[in-house]
Amino acid sequence: MRIVVLAGGIGGARFLRGLKAAAPDADITVIGNTGDDIHLFGLKVCPDLDTVMYTLGGGINEEQGWGRSDESFRVKEELAAYGVGPEWFGLGDRDFATHIVRTQMMSAGYPLSAVTEALCDRWQPGVTLLPMTDDRVETHVAVEDENGEKKAVHFQEYWVRLRASVPAEAVVPVGAEQAKPAPGVLEAIAAADVILFPPSNPVVSVGTILAVPGIREAIAEAGAPVVGLSPIVGDAPVRGMADKVLAAVGVESTASAVAAHYGMGLLDGWLVDTVDADKVAEVEEAGIRCRAVPLMMTDVEATAAMAREALTLAEEVRA
Amino acid sequence: MRIVVLAGGIGGARFLRGLKAAAPDADITVIGNTGDDIHLFGLKVCPDLDTVMYTLGGGINEEQGWGRSDESFRVKEELAAYGVGPEWFGLGDRDFATHIVRTQMMSAGYPLSAVTEALCDRWQPGVTLLPMTDDRVETHVAVEDENGEKKAVHFQEYWVRLRASVPAEAVVPVGAEQAKPAPGVLEAIAAADVILFPPSNPVVSVGTILAVPGIREAIAEAGAPVVGLSPIVGDAPVRGMADKVLAAVGVESTASAVAAHYGMGLLDGWLVDTVDADKVAEVEEAGIRCRAVPLMMTDVEATAAMAREALTLAEEVRA
Repeated sequence: MRIVVLAGGIGGARFLRGLKAAAPDADITVIGNTGDDIHLFGLKVCPDLDTVMYTLGGGINEEQGWGRSDESFRVKEELAAYGVGPEWFGLGDRDFATHIVRTQMMSAGYPLSAVTEALCDRWQPGVTLLPMTDDRVETHVAVEDENGEKKAVHFQEYWVRLRASVPAEAVVPVGAEQAKPAPGVLEAIAAADVILFPPSNPVVSVGTILAVPGIREAIAEAGAPVVGLSPIVGDAPVRGMADKVLAAVGVESTASAVAAHYGMGLLDGWLVDTVDADKVAEVEEAGIRCRAVPLMMTDVEATAAMAREALTLAEEVRA
Repeated sequence: MRIVVLAGGIGGARFLRGLKAAAPDADITVIGNTGDDIHLFGLKVCPDLDTVMYTLGGGINEEQGWGRSDESFRVKEELAAYGVGPEWFGLGDRDFATHIVRTQMMSAGYPLSAVTEALCDRWQPGVTLLPMTDDRVETHVAVEDENGEKKAVHFQEYWVRLRASVPAEAVVPVGAEQAKPAPGVLEAIAAADVILFPPSNPVVSVGTILAVPGIREAIAEAGAPVVGLSPIVGDAPVRGMADKVLAAVGVESTASAVAAHYGMGLLDGWLVDTVDADKVAEVEEAGIRCRAVPLMMTDVEATAAMAREALTLAEEVRA
């Protein structure tokens, strides 16, 4: 079975771990969001790709969900001693090595997809990890600063430095319009038996991937069922601050509103949490097959059960 | 008193510490060798400039004479886990930060001299540290490999990986002919009251600085006395492997041969160690005023005494 998954960072990575447990023999291709990539200290940092790679490769800091396990921060301390920031982005020493290798390879002319493959040679994530594009796309967030001035900040600045504490007025994947899907992306979608949207952020993770011209269309036209899992449970994000960026695109933070945001042209099936069972009818009325099942990724087994439900729903759709 | 010092790495840096103790009110400008600079992992590494900066700024690893104190090697371990080398060059985590800042600034368009000034803002070495040039110069060493093939290797590869274990057939500062002295270098030489050659490697440290067109000429034409300290004591280098590269340029490893190599057109005075007192007459016959004094930099006070002897000899020359 060939499964394609559109993944953001922590939520996507944890879902993938469950999916691998649920479908150990499946051929899984992950299309990773690169809109939150950022250049820090002259180095190319790809937070979402790395979170997937570290999580599936056994190198993740389990508690925080991003960054390396057993991490130290000596390089960062020294950079701060030089007065070089930003200090709000927590790059650890072990993590720095990944960005150094990536930057060196990219400076030598390798595209991000080739670099990602080389990094995965070490981590052996057990999936094919593809960046959504080899082109530069940067998600910017339009905000109003403390003086009432409108300005755009990099998504990481909004998310990590500001902790989404000011309203997002718009979310713009800068460069997406000119970006092309990375090699293998459209081919994987066309060949998929199932396409899954994990409980990732629908705007800045899955939404950014869908903003690369050709990807949304390829998914809509694919013969495979497309099933998503709601990242909103009980009208609030399970983790993170998805509600802030959903507001920016005029979408309510409810499991049903997110399904409608993706739309029946794209989604065939949608899983909501059991606490949102009252929303199943609304989603189905919108033309999307819906089930209410437990959606809390408390551990690998619970997550694997979610993945099995998604695959079961995909079979129902297909039938 | 304005003093100009041509410095390599460890020997130059330790001498400078003694000089600062001997002449605390002097205005010292250090012209640093950059011929052993190397790009590692895509980062610009300047071993000699950093050794001077760390030594005078209190950040050096005192025992080994290079690199940072209280160092760790987690980035390097991770790079090795990615299969990315070289592993023979020991970049520590704290040291990496220096190279990251330097590389980021240079990528933004700053010349090495401006970057060095910015790094020194933190370290406050108490001297003006200038790279010999802002242009790229790389010292290469011609060797014969195990198969008898002649090839050129980067100086660091010869020095650190091969530990100078194969004969050096030639030492070539690649790029030196096209290099220009960095801003301030010729001005400092012209304005100097004294010019000192510390007991640094006469070929790959001081020799490389002199290979930048204009620097040797400026020193020869300067009104100030030029005094050097022999790095060869008892016909062997005090530290390092200077004998290997002296052989490559056809110079015997003796205190007098090194003086003759610099030449009376350049040197006005030369200090040899007391064990080489028998060589004083030979040096003086070559037109260079010479004294035999203790030249072992065992501690700061012994080194300060050497610096005082050099300054005294300069006064004698001037009188």
